[in-house]
Amino acid sequence: MSEFRVAVLQAPLNASREENIEKIGGLVRRAAEAGAQIILPPELFEGPYFCKVEEEDHFALAAPYEGHPTIAHFSEMARELGVVIPISFFERAGQAYYNSLVVVDADGSDLGLYRKSHIPDGPGYEEKFYFRPGNTGFRVYKTQFATLGVGICWDQWFPECARAMTLLGAEILLYPTAIGLEPHEPDFDTKDPWQRAMIGHAVANSIPVAAANRIGDEGGQAFYGSSFIADARGDKVAELSRDEEGFAMASFDREALRARRASWGFFRDRRPELYGLLMTEDGVER
Amino acid sequence: MSEFRVAVLQAPLNASREENIEKIGGLVRRAAEAGAQIILPPELFEGPYFCKVEEEDHFALAAPYEGHPTIAHFSEMARELGVVIPISFFERAGQAYYNSLVVVDADGSDLGLYRKSHIPDGPGYEEKFYFRPGNTGFRVYKTQFATLGVGICWDQWFPECARAMTLLGAEILLYPTAIGLEPHEPDFDTKDPWQRAMIGHAVANSIPVAAANRIGDEGGQAFYGSSFIADARGDKVAELSRDEEGFAMASFDREALRARRASWGFFRDRRPELYGLLMTEDGVER
Repeated sequence: MSEFRVAVLQAPLNASREENIEKIGGLVRRAAEAGAQIILPPELFEGPYFCKVEEEDHFALAAPYEGHPTIAHFSEMARELGVVIPISFFERAGQAYYNSLVVVDADGSDLGLYRKSHIPDGPGYEEKFYFRPGNTGFRVYKTQFATLGVGICWDQWFPECARAMTLLGAEILLYPTAIGLEPHEPDFDTKDPWQRAMIGHAVANSIPVAAANRIGDEGGQAFYGSSFIADARGDKVAELSRDEEGFAMASFDREALRARRASWGFFRDRRPELYGLLMTEDGVER
Repeated sequence: MSEFRVAVLQAPLNASREENIEKIGGLVRRAAEAGAQIILPPELFEGPYFCKVEEEDHFALAAPYEGHPTIAHFSEMARELGVVIPISFFERAGQAYYNSLVVVDADGSDLGLYRKSHIPDGPGYEEKFYFRPGNTGFRVYKTQFATLGVGICWDQWFPECARAMTLLGAEILLYPTAIGLEPHEPDFDTKDPWQRAMIGHAVANSIPVAAANRIGDEGGQAFYGSSFIADARGDKVAELSRDEEGFAMASFDREALRARRASWGFFRDRRPELYGLLMTEDGVER
């Protein structure tokens, strides 16, 4: 089977972890019934986007990777439905806290941990207060249906991350997300640039991309949804609105994607010997 | 003066070098009269896109960088009009041939050579037959009006190139281009992916981009124009049609661009220590 089918989930999330798990679980079931094999919930779907403010109490939301109840819950659901689920969660690891993710395969097995590499910081998105920048490096997940590259939210703006995952053999790039309007600058709507950055990755790597975002107003911070799936030339083939709860789905053919990616020649023509500047912070090679 | 104004030129080109120089020169003058300070002609504007076929005779079109007549001609025009012009040309250097470019500043001075780093190859675009991959590395040009990052055509598809030029201090990215339909696959229109890749660079680096393409049918190869300028959030602020001869122009404020780029935080949050994969050809770190 060369074809794989991916769905992105979009929903508002509230202060009740149980209700959120129930809501996301319901959407996973609906997407699976519709034929989705790889089902992507939004980032940190267990609760409201707590990074809106810098609040010591919110560290209590974190839990260790080992024995994490949300991972256990969705691993069981993945096994039951025979679907792959990337699960975003707030990880406590010793004295460090990470914005983390695991992918569970369609047999419920855990394919391992990724910790968000790029951590944003700004009004309404105070992630540097909570998360240590990830130390796992970029990785891909070889699942029963496709090899997935998974970045987390802010990672999606970085061409380096998309390129690295594609070099590692990703067949699609997935990004669980929590993004909305800027509380301090209400006219600055980042929805179009947000999609364009990922569509740029799709084209430049000749690979489909999918992003799942939350919706709803969380105390004045309006999340804009617009979860979407773009094909390898950057055409949006599925998209949800700014306020729609549900899922969007698309199918891709791995063999056709591979042939077209080779034919474009981007990976034939790269010049790593000229890319030393990318290893610098400030454009100065030392 | 914090503002700078850039124009992209678009025209059909024929077998007469003199007519092409005259045509491009006329457009440079018109753009300068309209207030443009940085004026970008398309790639290899001295003639038809000779890379359509692999033909030994076409090597005779190359000439050395030193004393190149087209560079001399446009340097004089740059000085006369007080404008900056990136000049694309087919360079012969000893036994090597490059797809090259110089930028002449508004006083007519030559700011140096860049040789196209990424060389395409495929039906209708047989560049690997002609050009050795460039050995200059990526560079930026500090002109009287702005610091320019200039890539050449196929370079525009590579996020590494855009990122490197922005790291070096580019305030806008410019791409002279020759791209059209695929003679072997007429339904495969690359115009949208072509623009999307560059718009992705604009967003991911928070920097404006501009591309100048040719138009016209050259023996069954139809160049699709669509030259454009996008702002730092990827909005197309100026664009020419698929068959329009002329120029498109836009203004940018360097200080505003710099402030917004800093505020986005992409260059604050990059993780070069995780980017070792980008230095590989095949995703295997050795």
